[in-house]
Amino acid sequence: VRTRPWSDVASTDTGSRLPESGRVEAFSDGVLAIVITLLVLDLHPPEEHGKVLHDLLHQWPGYVAYLGSFAYAGVIWVNHHQLFTRIAVADVGLLWRNLALLLATSMLPFPTAVLAAAFQHGSQADKTTAVMLYCCLATVMACTWLAIFQYLCGHPRLLSSGTPVNFFVSERARSLLGIGFYVLAAVLSLWQPLVGLLLTTAMPLFYGLTSSGWSRAAAQTEPTSSRP
Amino acid sequence: VRTRPWSDVASTDTGSRLPESGRVEAFSDGVLAIVITLLVLDLHPPEEHGKVLHDLLHQWPGYVAYLGSFAYAGVIWVNHHQLFTRIAVADVGLLWRNLALLLATSMLPFPTAVLAAAFQHGSQADKTTAVMLYCCLATVMACTWLAIFQYLCGHPRLLSSGTPVNFFVSERARSLLGIGFYVLAAVLSLWQPLVGLLLTTAMPLFYGLTSSGWSRAAAQTEPTSSRP
Amino acid sequence: VRTRPWSDVASTDTGSRLPESGRVEAFSDGVLAIVITLLVLDLHPPEEHGKVLHDLLHQWPGYVAYLGSFAYAGVIWVNHHQLFTRIAVADVGLLWRNLALLLATSMLPFPTAVLAAAFQHGSQADKTTAVMLYCCLATVMACTWLAIFQYLCGHPRLLSSGTPVNFFVSERARSLLGIGFYVLAAVLSLWQPLVGLLLTTAMPLFYGLTSSGWSRAAAQTEPTSSRP
Amino acid sequence: VRTRPWSDVASTDTGSRLPESGRVEAFSDGVLAIVITLLVLDLHPPEEHGKVLHDLLHQWPGYVAYLGSFAYAGVIWVNHHQLFTRIAVADVGLLWRNLALLLATSMLPFPTAVLAAAFQHGSQADKTTAVMLYCCLATVMACTWLAIFQYLCGHPRLLSSGTPVNFFVSERARSLLGIGFYVLAAVLSLWQPLVGLLLTTAMPLFYGLTSSGWSRAAAQTEPTSSRP
Repeated sequence: VRTRPWSDVASTDTGSRLPESGRVEAFSDGVLAIVITLLVLDLHPPEEHGKVLHDLLHQWPGYVAYLGSFAYAGVIWVNHHQLFTRIAVADVGLLWRNLALLLATSMLPFPTAVLAAAFQHGSQADKTTAVMLYCCLATVMACTWLAIFQYLCGHPRLLSSGTPVNFFVSERARSLLGIGFYVLAAVLSLWQPLVGLLLTTAMPLFYGLTSSGWSRAAAQTEPTSSRP
Repeated sequence: VRTRPWSDVASTDTGSRLPESGRVEAFSDGVLAIVITLLVLDLHPPEEHGKVLHDLLHQWPGYVAYLGSFAYAGVIWVNHHQLFTRIAVADVGLLWRNLALLLATSMLPFPTAVLAAAFQHGSQADKTTAVMLYCCLATVMACTWLAIFQYLCGHPRLLSSGTPVNFFVSERARSLLGIGFYVLAAVLSLWQPLVGLLLTTAMPLFYGLTSSGWSRAAAQTEPTSSRP
Repeated sequence: VRTRPWSDVASTDTGSRLPESGRVEAFSDGVLAIVITLLVLDLHPPEEHGKVLHDLLHQWPGYVAYLGSFAYAGVIWVNHHQLFTRIAVADVGLLWRNLALLLATSMLPFPTAVLAAAFQHGSQADKTTAVMLYCCLATVMACTWLAIFQYLCGHPRLLSSGTPVNFFVSERARSLLGIGFYVLAAVLSLWQPLVGLLLTTAMPLFYGLTSSGWSRAAAQTEPTSSRP
Repeated sequence: VRTRPWSDVASTDTGSRLPESGRVEAFSDGVLAIVITLLVLDLHPPEEHGKVLHDLLHQWPGYVAYLGSFAYAGVIWVNHHQLFTRIAVADVGLLWRNLALLLATSMLPFPTAVLAAAFQHGSQADKTTAVMLYCCLATVMACTWLAIFQYLCGHPRLLSSGTPVNFFVSERARSLLGIGFYVLAAVLSLWQPLVGLLLTTAMPLFYGLTSSGWSRAAAQTEPTSSRP
């Protein structure tokens, strides 16, 4: 690797520039749009003659899980955008960490389907397992956010000018709080899985309401960018 | 949220600007392109030996539902674009309402599949249920359009300059009329499900023909933007 | 429609401009990228213990159909791009016709799967049916191309400057020739379905080799846009 | 083809310009984003009552294959971007070769699913077959990279200025080394399929760590584009 003949022409080599954040964002947007739309594939049309209404109603955990995960992916998209408006350039460390976030997000349809299946025809233990799997993935996802925040704190040059230095302090606190909530939901699911399901699928509301975008909106009802 | 150390530097904080409408539109386009393409996954290749032609013909409700939902998603895309050419900047309230519209749109493959399955091997009651489910989702979707129009009426600053103030009056009328049609289709499906199916899948024609884009085209056959 | 209160302010109404071709193209690109990638979902992993190699080999019609449809979608993308570099602005008539093309393209995975299934475990009649279905869709697709070419011939204002007026003459000839080939393949499949399958899946080669892009490349080996 | 009436107006015909690399890249990005997200569809939620935890654990080869292929597609995306930052304009030869790369990438979910299925309920021979299929596709993919590098070496006009001429020498070496590794994994799977599985799914690490992007990052910790 180090013996590459062109490694000493780095400063004039315009062709090998690191990807700007715009491209990373476009790819992430694509993945998020696909994940949020693929979720519907786990809602199955009833096939049994004469029992469509019954089967549709019986599928209610599928709808709860669908709505929860849709909101989750939606909030991730909003937060991802909010974050990337503060990033000017992406280096490889950020690329890796962003790919880890996309990995966790891409997996979302799986625990969602497990949740829906377990609450439809699973035992008590099955339901607890399903909630725990979902909380596991959500915790991993929160950790990838933490890794991104941590990395950006240590690499302020990647940030766009005007980003307050202590921005990531509050963002990290939010991620840690989220992890705490998911651990709580997992523990509660040992006692009563339904409580775990509802807590888990309601979590995006918390993330949504505390996102910097939403909080700004609460503070000021008019968008700043329309000011002359 | 209010205790964030940087909340008093809002006016100089260029990093936390609200997302411009272009990004919201790109994400919405992605979701719509995926929904419109995923619909095909509910057309199943016949597997029975020697009966491919028979099974293909027997699957006709699947084709009707597919065409109806494809046209529906296509019209949503056209209308969404027509709307967003009038929007200059997106705030969080609009983001929420747009996400609600995308939620309803993303679910479209599900009632489509239920419709196709019920009319292929369901009872009379199954078919009525399927039409009603489809009409339900379509009504929810019309309501999300209404919510967006209502919001834009109250937030004229989000609009691009030159948008006529009474634009949303006619748009709202169109949504309300659409809801009326879907309620009618649902009621008729109690009597004759097939009528409900045909009305439901023909609805996009109504939306398409009355969209501002189409009507403008009817009034003038040459595009305005090609004028010097 | 005509009674809209703002219909008399059309000339100053910058907000309701018709979509530029760039957006139509981006949406079409999205649909094409999804179609080309969804095709893989019809290749099924063998599940039977001890027979993976046998089942993989037995699935050969699936690979032929996959490769044929992948090439087909790829050529559509290239041709679509070649066409839209000649279009400056999209009006509603073009939008409708482009949506019809996308409809035909989006359905591609369905006859592909029918083809694969029929040649794996279908009767002779099943195979003929499958080839005919594929040719049917391909003919519909060629007709949507014809409709677009016809429309552009009658609306030269939509074209970008510098497009030769007789460009669409050769394009239409190509589409008509394509329809002829597909009709031939359908007829031959009555006699020998395998010939129909091979002709059908080899057709994209014809479209690819005669596309204006390819032919230009044959005439000049260096790209024009890299000239100073 | 040669008789096209407008083929002699090529130099003034701005409408038929070859696609710039930006569009090829956007389409490739779309395909890659979809492939990386579709992989999750091969993780199946357990349906058996009371055995969700057991079935989830039993599905471990599915997770290994998923992670391996996700990393693979992620590395392809990074490498594709690194490559296209060095390409200024795409001609038809490059378009063909890029489409071949996308073909190999789009098929990725298939051998991934075969791998997962074979290691869950297949015989020893099944597992060997599955590893070999995966290595086959990976080798084909490496060959499409080689074809692209080879083509660019012979068409330096397509490259953006500043790209070192011997860049593709090291890239080709990397592809050849990758092919060697996959052949090794295939051979080892004859003896012990599990070793083949682990080697195969760990390969993206090799590609990732030796990509020009990563190596540059190792050499310099600050991104060049943020310099004033």
